[in-house]
Amino acid sequence: MSLDKKSALHESEGTAPSSGVNAEVAKRIKEARKKEINVEELYREILSGNKSALSKGITLIENTNPVFEEKASRLIELCLPHANKSIRIGITGVPGVGKSTFIEAFGIYLADNGKKVAVLAVDPSSTVSKGSILGDKTRMETLVNHKNAFIRPSPSGDSLGGVARTTRESIILCEAAGFDTLLIETVGVGQSETTVHSMTDFFLLLKLAGAGDELQGIKRGIIEMADAIVINKADGENRKPAEKARAEFRRALHLYPPKDSGWEPKVLLASSLKKEGITEVWDLINEFQTLTKKNGGFDHKRHEQNKYWLLQTINDHLKSRFYHHPVIKKSLKKELLALEKNETTPFKAAAYLLEKYRKL
Amino acid sequence: MSLDKKSALHESEGTAPSSGVNAEVAKRIKEARKKEINVEELYREILSGNKSALSKGITLIENTNPVFEEKASRLIELCLPHANKSIRIGITGVPGVGKSTFIEAFGIYLADNGKKVAVLAVDPSSTVSKGSILGDKTRMETLVNHKNAFIRPSPSGDSLGGVARTTRESIILCEAAGFDTLLIETVGVGQSETTVHSMTDFFLLLKLAGAGDELQGIKRGIIEMADAIVINKADGENRKPAEKARAEFRRALHLYPPKDSGWEPKVLLASSLKKEGITEVWDLINEFQTLTKKNGGFDHKRHEQNKYWLLQTINDHLKSRFYHHPVIKKSLKKELLALEKNETTPFKAAAYLLEKYRKL
Repeated sequence: MSLDKKSALHESEGTAPSSGVNAEVAKRIKEARKKEINVEELYREILSGNKSALSKGITLIENTNPVFEEKASRLIELCLPHANKSIRIGITGVPGVGKSTFIEAFGIYLADNGKKVAVLAVDPSSTVSKGSILGDKTRMETLVNHKNAFIRPSPSGDSLGGVARTTRESIILCEAAGFDTLLIETVGVGQSETTVHSMTDFFLLLKLAGAGDELQGIKRGIIEMADAIVINKADGENRKPAEKARAEFRRALHLYPPKDSGWEPKVLLASSLKKEGITEVWDLINEFQTLTKKNGGFDHKRHEQNKYWLLQTINDHLKSRFYHHPVIKKSLKKELLALEKNETTPFKAAAYLLEKYRKL
Repeated sequence: MSLDKKSALHESEGTAPSSGVNAEVAKRIKEARKKEINVEELYREILSGNKSALSKGITLIENTNPVFEEKASRLIELCLPHANKSIRIGITGVPGVGKSTFIEAFGIYLADNGKKVAVLAVDPSSTVSKGSILGDKTRMETLVNHKNAFIRPSPSGDSLGGVARTTRESIILCEAAGFDTLLIETVGVGQSETTVHSMTDFFLLLKLAGAGDELQGIKRGIIEMADAIVINKADGENRKPAEKARAEFRRALHLYPPKDSGWEPKVLLASSLKKEGITEVWDLINEFQTLTKKNGGFDHKRHEQNKYWLLQTINDHLKSRFYHHPVIKKSLKKELLALEKNETTPFKAAAYLLEKYRKL
């Protein structure tokens, strides 16, 4: 077994030694090797635009093993002053809308025009199925091999919160590596769209003509979040219905109050297949950048997003600490039972549990 | 100053003594008098249906002075076994929809038919304006004087959470006092509709024909919560538009998935002025009760609501404890500043603050 040839970041590929003592020794060696990752060197490689170093860095951030925590934290700290110089574009749409094809066409257009494009994904469903919306890289075969592009599938975490954290921190690394155009893809599962919206500058909603899911989009607040709606597959027989849909979405968008940034969401047509409408999408995003950088909306939004993530992380942890405490777990079960029998009230039970927790 | 003539529950009306020593003495006397409230006696009076005792009991619950806390808790505990035998009806609608007139007409109909009707309100806006949607009791002049009715304006709390707690506990007291039909009114401010929905069995949305706020209702999830939509003021010239609106809302309701309880929301017409459609609303609520008590949906919903309020209360307190801690307050300010200068990340700052809090 040649431990030294393995990347310290791919520990899981190691074969388990047979005896307990050897296992202990092997473990110690592994731990020692982990600590050997030279963060400063990795940082310099990332800063020089080395994609393989960037990949390693993201793997380090994604690793939930506490051994890596300090290193990951240090790496982010080093990269932070070089981050923030980018446009972060969120892209969503229901399955079948042609998200991958659009991102490939859009990404190639940007990369061909000298942009450095990083594609990330937020897909909490992949943490369950262990699949990933970007896992099947063959779907973006040309883009993945483009010298100006970097594609990273959705991290697997135990929660949307975990996926969100690693994605937010991966953004910092990508930006430090010189990627100036970030495409963050999401499927519309649970809160994933809200999550991506809260970490991007521009939120793009892909739609099909006549899909009839407008009410769903309004109900879930997706249309309200959009900075642009792009009606995809607007080619051939679809062209006319797409134009009709564009008029309808324009009307729908007028029903919403104006955005804080002063930006008025637009509706565009595109055909990823025929590479039509791609330039227009990019022109629109530039128009958005010009406006919001001038009126301060761009920076303001990023600051608000940072604040949101700070408070969100705190709140998640406060809850997690409480509900995962073994004493509370046991007491909560009892109180829930009493509640079901109407022997207590929700407020009395809560006061009791909170007092118990305070004394722990 | 005749302290002994004052109700112990109206402490705020007392005039402040001029000297420090006297103040101390007066305070001690007051504290002693507060403790004198005989909870057992109050409980027996409430149980006998004494409305004035019910009022006193609710005032006790609403009082945020910690001196009263234990007494309030004991009173609820005593009343609890006698609660839960009622139908709790939430009523909402935008200002101008005729909510008060509808509640008066509906309440009188129920009271005349032998029902014991309690009207409560959840209006967080009244905590700011110090007004109240039910404060102007003259708006329900006939109902307020009906022997079978009890009307209580919205409590003033420092948050929707506070108002929600006192309303939930007031429900218990009202039920113990024999009120079997609870009408819980709310204005559509912030989250107040969701709050009332989560403490009632049946949620009734009042609408006007042609008000054009359907999108707003869909967006905010109000239509999705409704068990019935009542199109009010469906009289005279309004009749035809109201019938048209009924057809539209029926179509809209079909777009939503069926409710857990198996209940299919209905749309009705009513005229509070002409007392039309009132019987139909009550018939519908009875139909709902028959169905959901048979299929278990009624009890299941109440249990789920209890669970929701237990967790909600815990989460609110965990956050409040953290953010109100003086050390955390100061550190959070610093971290937010560092965040604005991009010197830290939301996750790093959160980890730092949480660790600090853990060590306090």
